[in-house]
Amino acid sequence: MSKTIKLHHGDGGVHTNNLIQNIFYKYFNNPALLKGGDSAVFDINGSKLGYTTDSYVVKPLFFPGGNIGSLAVCGTINDLTVTGAMPLYLSAGFIIEEGFEISKLEVITRTMQEICKQTGVKIITGDTKIVERGSVDNLFINTSGVGEIIDGYEPKSIQAGDEIIITGGIGEHGGVIALKRYELGIGEGLKSDCRPLIDILIKIRDYLPFVKVMKDPTRGGIATILNEIAKEHKIGILLSEENIPICKEVKGVTELLGLDPYYLACEGRMILIVRQGYGEKILKIIKGIDNCKNASLIGRVIEEQCEYVCLNTWIGGKRRLYMLETSMLPRIC
Amino acid sequence: MSKTIKLHHGDGGVHTNNLIQNIFYKYFNNPALLKGGDSAVFDINGSKLGYTTDSYVVKPLFFPGGNIGSLAVCGTINDLTVTGAMPLYLSAGFIIEEGFEISKLEVITRTMQEICKQTGVKIITGDTKIVERGSVDNLFINTSGVGEIIDGYEPKSIQAGDEIIITGGIGEHGGVIALKRYELGIGEGLKSDCRPLIDILIKIRDYLPFVKVMKDPTRGGIATILNEIAKEHKIGILLSEENIPICKEVKGVTELLGLDPYYLACEGRMILIVRQGYGEKILKIIKGIDNCKNASLIGRVIEEQCEYVCLNTWIGGKRRLYMLETSMLPRIC
Repeated sequence: MSKTIKLHHGDGGVHTNNLIQNIFYKYFNNPALLKGGDSAVFDINGSKLGYTTDSYVVKPLFFPGGNIGSLAVCGTINDLTVTGAMPLYLSAGFIIEEGFEISKLEVITRTMQEICKQTGVKIITGDTKIVERGSVDNLFINTSGVGEIIDGYEPKSIQAGDEIIITGGIGEHGGVIALKRYELGIGEGLKSDCRPLIDILIKIRDYLPFVKVMKDPTRGGIATILNEIAKEHKIGILLSEENIPICKEVKGVTELLGLDPYYLACEGRMILIVRQGYGEKILKIIKGIDNCKNASLIGRVIEEQCEYVCLNTWIGGKRRLYMLETSMLPRIC
Repeated sequence: MSKTIKLHHGDGGVHTNNLIQNIFYKYFNNPALLKGGDSAVFDINGSKLGYTTDSYVVKPLFFPGGNIGSLAVCGTINDLTVTGAMPLYLSAGFIIEEGFEISKLEVITRTMQEICKQTGVKIITGDTKIVERGSVDNLFINTSGVGEIIDGYEPKSIQAGDEIIITGGIGEHGGVIALKRYELGIGEGLKSDCRPLIDILIKIRDYLPFVKVMKDPTRGGIATILNEIAKEHKIGILLSEENIPICKEVKGVTELLGLDPYYLACEGRMILIVRQGYGEKILKIIKGIDNCKNASLIGRVIEEQCEYVCLNTWIGGKRRLYMLETSMLPRIC
């Protein structure tokens, strides 16, 4: 490992994992953390709770489809949701640069409250720190969240034949940030997919016994998340490129900038791995949910005792998708 | 309110309160948050939990008696403790500047783990974000924490006659930060008082029915905290200057820099307001705890239906201590 922190230590890929393993897991060495899920799970007098945190450093703070506040609330809600927890309470910590406009802070705060209202989640504790000009880039927000695990839900072991669902088009959040960052003036109409995923969890509740894993493909995109699943469960995954929903604006942006949509962050999508034979049933429910009409069965688990993610491409070839090796786009969330 | 954020919005005094009232409470408007305690309290299937968060932006990162990691763990543990909650689980979110030395990150992480081990608290969820050079000043840490409220504990209404205890010397953390910040080369031997307060809660457990309020006097020092209590409970407080423990190093630093020790942060002290007649008994227990031998009965509640904090000075006069109006020392935690 290098002697200093590099930007790639934050991209959610190989280098992030190295930093986590070599520093954080080395010291904060307890079973709940080492499970490495989107949320830790703990027990209080028989109640199973999910607990998670994320800091948000997105640049720019405002983008089509949301702002740092919507990311901060949705991101933490979603990390609880994919653990099978109904999100209940959040904390919010603001670190603000001297000189930041209070009117912008108000817009961000209002956005956070709108999502809380929509989801029934409450921000019940918070903190504000102000630092001198130049000591932080405008505004960073940390949120943590607590939720109650839905009775009896737990991730299950994955087998060959299991089916993979994505709840909507990929790369839209990453695509929007790239457009804004490079001021390209193209991709009109592209919006971040940022949204809370609670409604999906509620709607598929009766099918949870057949849901083996839920994940939100944020930093590193679907390629990185699926590689993590392949590694953890020792499985081989085959995706079908023609079934992966990518809107034309994301295609345009990624072609222009040489970005790979499979590695671009989503902030309001869920990947589900479900028991063989249940994919179509669960997909049908999800397609009926707002903003999920492009949900799709994108592939399946084809092999056990190996670790890879492969793509059947449009032109009939096969492409291996590896863990993210290099930082494509820092500060996407 | 001004149009932009000023440094004084973060000093824990009048301006911080204005920002919280006008922005955060306006939108995040729910009873648990509006109570404004050190931790929010919520109920899960009959279990009462405390929940809190703080971001740490202290400058410098390392100081005699601790580092940003010890503050981040102790600060959140203490916010739970003074709410009457036994701290159980923490989250930790790191925002790190590109180029930061990994060896320093390791020292900070190890310190955090040492305090966790000592207290039985576990960091079970975390997050790491890396930002480009110049986008954050070295390293910021957010911690949140969850604890279980000790059976039956709740803050009680305060009456004239109630007694006020401080568990040790004041201003030591703020004093150390001032010394390091201005590179004064004096005050050798002064260390931050940063420590977890759990042992105090455990030792006085049998007396909790007689403990009306517990607070940790961090940003804004004992003067600000006592003013907040005076305002919330509509009481007048009289302190005795000769009973307030201030070590000679803190006296030296504050005289040299023109700082007021009553407004300097402590990071390992607790203020307790206890029922009349129980002050001496509880003080005796506290004085037997490590690092608490200078604990002292510093004053009492002398009046109801008014809101002030007053000091009987050494020379026989009276001095009114107001809420902190101006920022003495930004980024002390």
